[in-house]
This record gives sequence, C-alpha cells and structure tokens, in this order.
Amino acid sequence: MAGTAERMAKNQKQVAISEFFEKNKHFLGFDSLTRSLITAVKEAVDNSLDACEEARILPDIRVKITKLDDKKNIVELQTEDNGPGIPKRSIEKVFGQLLFGSRFHAIRQSRGQQGIGITGVVMYCQLTTGQKTHVRSKIATETSAAVVDIGLDTRKNKATKSNEGRELWELEDGTLKEHGLEVTCRMKAKYQRGRQSVYQYLRMTSIVNPHADITFVDPDGDVHHWPRVTERLPRKVESIKPHPHGIHLGTLQRMCTESTDSRMTSFLYKNFSGVSTRAAKQLLEAAEIEEKGKPKSMKPDQIRALIEAFQGERVLNGKPVKLLNPPTNCLSPIEELLIKKGLSKTIDSRFVTTMTRSPTVSQGNPYQVEVGLIFGDGMAADKPVEVLRFANRVPLMYQQGGCLLTKAIESVDWRQYGLDQAGGRGVPKGPAAILVHLASTNVQFTSEAKEALADNGEVMDEVRKAMLEMGRGLRKHL
Amino acid sequence: MAGTAERMAKNQKQVAISEFFEKNKHFLGFDSLTRSLITAVKEAVDNSLDACEEARILPDIRVKITKLDDKKNIVELQTEDNGPGIPKRSIEKVFGQLLFGSRFHAIRQSRGQQGIGITGVVMYCQLTTGQKTHVRSKIATETSAAVVDIGLDTRKNKATKSNEGRELWELEDGTLKEHGLEVTCRMKAKYQRGRQSVYQYLRMTSIVNPHADITFVDPDGDVHHWPRVTERLPRKVESIKPHPHGIHLGTLQRMCTESTDSRMTSFLYKNFSGVSTRAAKQLLEAAEIEEKGKPKSMKPDQIRALIEAFQGERVLNGKPVKLLNPPTNCLSPIEELLIKKGLSKTIDSRFVTTMTRSPTVSQGNPYQVEVGLIFGDGMAADKPVEVLRFANRVPLMYQQGGCLLTKAIESVDWRQYGLDQAGGRGVPKGPAAILVHLASTNVQFTSEAKEALADNGEVMDEVRKAMLEMGRGLRKHL
Repeated sequence: MAGTAERMAKNQKQVAISEFFEKNKHFLGFDSLTRSLITAVKEAVDNSLDACEEARILPDIRVKITKLDDKKNIVELQTEDNGPGIPKRSIEKVFGQLLFGSRFHAIRQSRGQQGIGITGVVMYCQLTTGQKTHVRSKIATETSAAVVDIGLDTRKNKATKSNEGRELWELEDGTLKEHGLEVTCRMKAKYQRGRQSVYQYLRMTSIVNPHADITFVDPDGDVHHWPRVTERLPRKVESIKPHPHGIHLGTLQRMCTESTDSRMTSFLYKNFSGVSTRAAKQLLEAAEIEEKGKPKSMKPDQIRALIEAFQGERVLNGKPVKLLNPPTNCLSPIEELLIKKGLSKTIDSRFVTTMTRSPTVSQGNPYQVEVGLIFGDGMAADKPVEVLRFANRVPLMYQQGGCLLTKAIESVDWRQYGLDQAGGRGVPKGPAAILVHLASTNVQFTSEAKEALADNGEVMDEVRKAMLEMGRGLRKHL
Repeated sequence: MAGTAERMAKNQKQVAISEFFEKNKHFLGFDSLTRSLITAVKEAVDNSLDACEEARILPDIRVKITKLDDKKNIVELQTEDNGPGIPKRSIEKVFGQLLFGSRFHAIRQSRGQQGIGITGVVMYCQLTTGQKTHVRSKIATETSAAVVDIGLDTRKNKATKSNEGRELWELEDGTLKEHGLEVTCRMKAKYQRGRQSVYQYLRMTSIVNPHADITFVDPDGDVHHWPRVTERLPRKVESIKPHPHGIHLGTLQRMCTESTDSRMTSFLYKNFSGVSTRAAKQLLEAAEIEEKGKPKSMKPDQIRALIEAFQGERVLNGKPVKLLNPPTNCLSPIEELLIKKGLSKTIDSRFVTTMTRSPTVSQGNPYQVEVGLIFGDGMAADKPVEVLRFANRVPLMYQQGGCLLTKAIESVDWRQYGLDQAGGRGVPKGPAAILVHLASTNVQFTSEAKEALADNGEVMDEVRKAMLEMGRGLRKHL
C-alpha cells in the first residue's frame, strides 16, 4: 500500500478543453461522416445569421460543397456572407480558440452562445484531413480583406496560423466586396440527401429566417436558392440583466464579491431586471439587511436570506416582495405572418395556420413559443406528420424523440383536430407538417451539439397551449 | 456600418470551462433536484471504486444522505471509502479543478475518464448552497489525515480552500483509519425512492461490482447493505498504446511533431499497439517513407500516406499490411459467474442466464460485451422487462430510449425465446430483467453526464450477437 496514493497522484494532470472536445467530438455533433458536414454548415451559417442580425444587415449567404475525393470522403465546404466581417486580430480567437465569444454572458436571444461551434469545425477539419481552415474577412473600414489559415493547438487551446496576409476581395462584377466573411475548410465527410441533410438544414433555416437570402451549390453543381420573403430584419434584441427568480445562491455570492457598488440598494437596482428602487428596499427589509450595507461585505447568511427574499420564501407583511417581469425586448419572435411566408416558400400547402404566444418567463428567463401547422400537397397521408423543430431560429435535426418540443406535440390529442393519431398520443399521422419554435434567452439543450431541448415543465405547458389554440383554429377551418 | 465589426469584436472574451459547465450544469447531470443527488452519489462512488481497483483494495463504501431542511430541499451527502486516499497537495486539484485527472489519456477500461465528475459536484454544491465541500483524506504513509474545505473559483477554474489542517481519523472502535477518503457536501437536492433513485443506483452498482461492499444510510436512518459476494478483485487493467486503426490524421501529425524518436521504425514500434518491427517496416514501405526518416520531419503528404497505410488504403504487394489486434488486458469484464452472483444478490430469481463475449476491436478500441437475463419472482408479467444498462461497471440510469444498448435489445425478436413482444420489436414484456454491460477503453457517451451510449454499428452487432446466443440457452431451458 505504502506509496500507492502518491504514485496514483503523480499521473494526474490538467487536460485542455480542446483536448477534451477533440476526444469527445461527437458531443459537438461530429459523430458520423454525414452529420459532421451538416454540423459544419450549421455552425458557419448560424454565425453568419447572428453577425448579420447584430450588425443590422439583411443576410446574403452562400454555401458550396465540393467533393474532393469521393473514395476517401474528403469534402470542401465554403460559406460566404455579407456580414460585418471580423477584424484581423480577432480572427484567430474566433476560429482557433474554444469557449471564446461574445454571447456567453449576454442574456438575450441568439443562435450561438457557447463559443464552441466554429472552432469545433476547425478542429474537426484538422483532425481528419490535417488541414487548416482558410478565412477571408473584409470589414467596412478597410480597403483590403484579411486572409489567414487557422488551425488549433489542442494541447493549449490556442490558434495556429499560417499564410497570413491581405488581399483585395474582388467580386464577379469586378467591384470590391464591402464587408463579409468567407470560410473554406476541408474535412472527412459525406454529402447525402434526405431528411437529415445539408439541403434540409438550409431549407428549414430559410423558413425561420425569412429575411435571409440563402444559396446552396451542391456537389453536383446544382444551385438551390431560397430568396428572402421580407426586407424586415428581425427585431433588434437587447441584452437584459438577470432576474432575481433565476439566480442561484453561488451566483449572487459571486456578484456581491465582484461588485463595486457602495450600497445594497443600488447593487440590486443596477444589476437585476425586474427590481425597482422600491422593490430593492423591500427585498433588503425582508432579508433583514441594511440598505447601506456594502455588497462586498455581505456574510453568507445574509446572501442566503436575500436569495430567500428573491424566491418569496422570506416575506414582508406576510407577502412575497413583488418583482416586475424581465423585459422581453431580449426576444425576437418570427411572428405569424412571416412564419406563414417562410412555410409557403418551402412547402406546397393548401392550408397554413400559425400562432405566436405572448412572451412569458420561466425561472427569470423570458421565452416565447411559436407554432405552425401546414396541410401540404404531396405529403404522405399515412405517415407521421413532419415535425419541424427550432430553437432561437435554428433548426434542430437530430434526437427528435428525446426533445421537449416533440414530447409536447405527442402529448396533444390531435384526433379532435382532424388528424389521425393512435390512442390520442404520439406524433399524429397525415399530410401535414407541424412547426414549433422556442425563442429564449436561455435555451437548455441536452448537449453541446444543440440538437434537442432538455425537459422543462413550464416550457412544455406553453408549447401545448400554443398547439391547442392553433388546433381550435384548424378545427374551425376543417 | 463603419465600426460595427470592431464594436462587436470588443465584446468577445474567453470563458473558463468552469463557467461553461456552471451555466450548463444539466450537461453534467444536474438538471433536476432528484437527479442532482443521484449524480453526486454516482461521481463519488465511481471515484472510490476506480481508486480501490487501481490500488488493489477490496472496496468498502458507505453512503449517507441526511435531509437538513426538508422545505428548502437542502441535503447533506457523505461518502466514505477505504481507498488509498489522496495526498494533501493533490486534493485541491482533484476536487476544485475541472478536467484534471489521470485517466483522460490512458487507454484502458475505467469508470471515470473526464476529470469532470467530482469537481462538478463541488461546483453544484457551491452554486446551490454557497457551501464548500469538506474532504478528509488519509494515505497509508502518514499518521494523520488531511482535511480541507474545497470550493471553486469558476472564473479561473481553480480551487478555493479554507479550514485546511490535519487530524487523527478515529474509527468507531477507537483505532485509526489506515487509508481512505471521506467527502461531505451540501446541496439543493431531493431524495426520492423508485426506479431512478440513489437506492437503485447503488443496487445496480453492486450487481456489476460484486467485489464491493456497499452500505447506504437513507434519510430515514434505514441502513441498506449490499455485501460483497467475491473476494476476487477485478482483473488489473493495463494501459495500452493506441492502435493504428483508431488514429486520426491530425493525431498522427501531433504524435510525429512531439516525438523525440530518431527513426520512423522505432516511432511506430514504440508508440502503437499491434505494430511489430516487421509491420512497422511494411507500413513505411507501403507509405513510401524511409525507415530512417525522423518523425519530427515528416511532411503532411507523408503523414497522409502513413494514415492510408494504417487503414489499408495503401497496400504492399497488393495486400494491406497485417497488424495485430490491440491487447485486451486493458479490459476487465465481470465474467459470467460473478454477474450471476451479483444478480442473485439483488433480484429474487427463478432462473438466471449470462454470457460474456470474447473481447473484440472497433476502430482500434478493444471492447467486450456481457449480457444476462433473469426471470424473477415478484416482477410484473404484463410490463416491459427491466433493462439494466452498464458501461465499464457503471449503471446507466437515464435516457434509456436513446441508448445504443436499449436499441440493441429492442432489435431482437424475443418471441422466439418465449418472451412477449408486440410485433417482434421493442422492449419485450414479462417478469424478467435484461442486463447489458459494455466494457471498453473508449466508451462513447451521448453527453458528459454519461447516461446513454452513442450509436455504433459494430458494438450494436456485438450486443445483438450476445443476446441471441443467450436467448438460445434460454429457449432450451424453457
């Protein structure tokens, strides 16, 4: 026995996050040759749409896939957008460093949040073909575009660079590109058609992003084009402050420790949404904390008392302190008319009905549910309806059965609305498609690959309500 | 537009892995109050079993759960083992730093691999109760035990410590503890009975770890005891080198760059399993690389050629270079007799049959499948059979439907073996339980919470084969 513990301890060491995800690349959606390609397209396109939305640009996106070696499954993927571009010095971090991004701490609706996606693509390309990813970026304030090849030192989670330079980005008509980003990468992957395919991903993306113009050149050279159906950009989303109902004790502790506020009243008023100056005073009274107490000097017991006041477990005059709901300008729903337009663009339909619920709040996080139902021509009458799932305007393509949105659909008795459904449970049958979109500041996925939503009773109820409401409209129509 | 790209880039920053998992704690299995408690027990017990196995100690494990505040769902969890203990200076890293561990790079069967588990528990406790985790560790070479309270600075992924010291660890009989570890932590959680419970987790753990003695004191003070049924420790597992069939191009590239070997022949012979000196020469010949070439100076094209030789895409005299299978002493199956013993201990049974397949290899990774079937008294005849899933001796309790092991069971026509099954597909019905255990050097889970296995055609086939073989035995018996 003597020495065993020491010997075992000696073998322990720190692993870099990039080594972790290189080994567990399937967590990021790189688990089969077909899916890896869809994942890569998804990460690039999501970034383009997010960047365009933030910069208030109507997105023009082009995706091109080329088979370089059919036998060895080597594929080249090129995506191009007209977004704001990325300043030269930031490129290496965005593409070559995991967990680097702007949206992790921001509380608002966005497609990307994790700072993992596109670096995961660079990592997968390097792992499977040994090649770096070529980036060309043009920002409005510079004449030339920055170009660079980016790889990843996975032992350090740092970018490796080569062929850095500048060039003029000429367009086909001879003019210079104003601003935008082009990403070219090579990976082991397989292009495939069907229900889970790049084509389907882009088609679904176009439904929930009716303001986007998307072009796809497939490996056969065939060009697929989904034109934009509205010139109206999605509503600009604002970041909000956290709401007391969604705060954990440990988080409040850290916020207090890091705070430079001189009084607890201003600390509460300035750092949380839904807390008026009046509510701030009441919360402190309920928690038996002095208003002029310093956040930095709060004791563990006081922080615990404050959390209890947040959650209404400590009351004032027998009642929980009343807090306002968080603002909902952090959300950007698609809205009924545009869902209809988006759907009609990609599905031949005889009948479309849609429904956007009012925003609501779960544990301090604003969210909003939208649903749509399409009766279509050319869809099979004896097969399960097509389920189109979306979270923050991103299509979810995998793990349909394990997803909260599917479970909500399955829990509705669709027979009362004229659809075939064995036992009044499960996915109904019929020549139809059901669309569900969850917009939220805090979408809880089941994994980093962001393919299915984790269980949440409140969101489930809200999706059900939306579908029942839509169903009533449908019954009237039929 | 001018300045937008710069403004957006300014908001970008690096997020620590601990911040990432704090926000996404449900990836680690902390998604509901009930499940968080099971996850915490699982991480502590898995570590104890791994440490005992490595130190060749027959494990005595004690788990105690106390309700501290029933209304606010505050629970104390204490686990104690007789393992080798952890040297004082390593405690803070093991408990307070994510991705720190000894098993990430080791290719062999082990319960933990990620270096995330127990630090995740410390993080969850701190987040939900603001409290540190108390650790007491005694190693054989010291008289006193080290004690310390560990928290986590999530912004830096570093431990925070307090109340560090040394004390004599006295046992109830007045003697001193020789070696072992005790972890005490407080968290927001809910104790519950039933199919997904701490009780069930420990019961299942005891089935596949028949060499372990496990005691559980539940919140009512009731003591549950699963005694060990064998004094034989699981076979000692040896770490093996990677096999050429499981190597990605990017990994080989890194291995070459980091290598200090002077010749490619010795590089191949020394760093890979399954490669004899003869095979090393043949691989190089097939890849048209000089034997005395230096690994460090390999060009991208040469590395690509070598990978192709690894995968048999480049041949020698018309044939792929023959490689040996990797050794299988990196695996430690439970073995049929012990599965039977383990099962009989926890399930009243009329009939038990088990089957351990020979080890095999998928993409360079050795793995082995074991199955068991129990007809039991007191089990419902008209309900689906109980499915007991295990990976590397760890019970899988969640996401049954999304797990490869369940899919394999569902794909067997159990009617031919005397079980009820609608349409010959799906989980069969009857008063029985089916056990499946996958032992592997590289278990691919669907997420960090390690609750379900990702799809893999070869493993699926192997599990099916095991069940068909077992089924034939069953039919004879019935």
